[in-house]
Amino acid sequence: MFKLIVLVKKKADMANAEFTKYWLETHAPLAKKIPGLRRYVVNVVRPPPNRVPDFDGVVEMWFDDTESMKKAFASPEGQATQKDTERFTNKITTLFIDEHVIA
Amino acid sequence: MFKLIVLVKKKADMANAEFTKYWLETHAPLAKKIPGLRRYVVNVVRPPPNRVPDFDGVVEMWFDDTESMKKAFASPEGQATQKDTERFTNKITTLFIDEHVIA
Repeated sequence: MFKLIVLVKKKADMANAEFTKYWLETHAPLAKKIPGLRRYVVNVVRPPPNRVPDFDGVVEMWFDDTESMKKAFASPEGQATQKDTERFTNKITTLFIDEHVIA
Repeated sequence: MFKLIVLVKKKADMANAEFTKYWLETHAPLAKKIPGLRRYVVNVVRPPPNRVPDFDGVVEMWFDDTESMKKAFASPEGQATQKDTERFTNKITTLFIDEHVIA
């Protein structure tokens, strides 16, 4: 299993509630259709009281292997999802992961 | 359920293999002992070919609620784990998370 973690910032002009609503109600249903995406977890960051957080969201995506991931992102559903990402997120950091479930 | 995501950098003088080995063989067994820690996932970042990654690891921790998390970190096991963190990580970013499992 191959895991991807993506750290995202919301668009600067978006309120937190709007960002979360867009992600869960518009973007996530698109992502769910990507062929070969085995698991998809949306982590919405709770805004800290007195500062701007470094990130507003953390995405987790699992594929069978890197080849499946490439195919998934190249598919029409993958392309549509990536294009939609630009509508609610800003800076993006992508990390390739070796996952170890300890407990 | 309450989830915490922690983004970490390894100590600058540590090689990647050394960092991973310390985390999995020394640190993770300490973390496993923390009372109230419901789930613990270690995500080791695969070093990208031609650059220094923004982060070397992503920690995921689940607790019943924020009160349980506070108790967990205040416990002797929690304190020992946090102290050990300083031995192999550097910059740390902690994010409080609302998790949504989509697929």
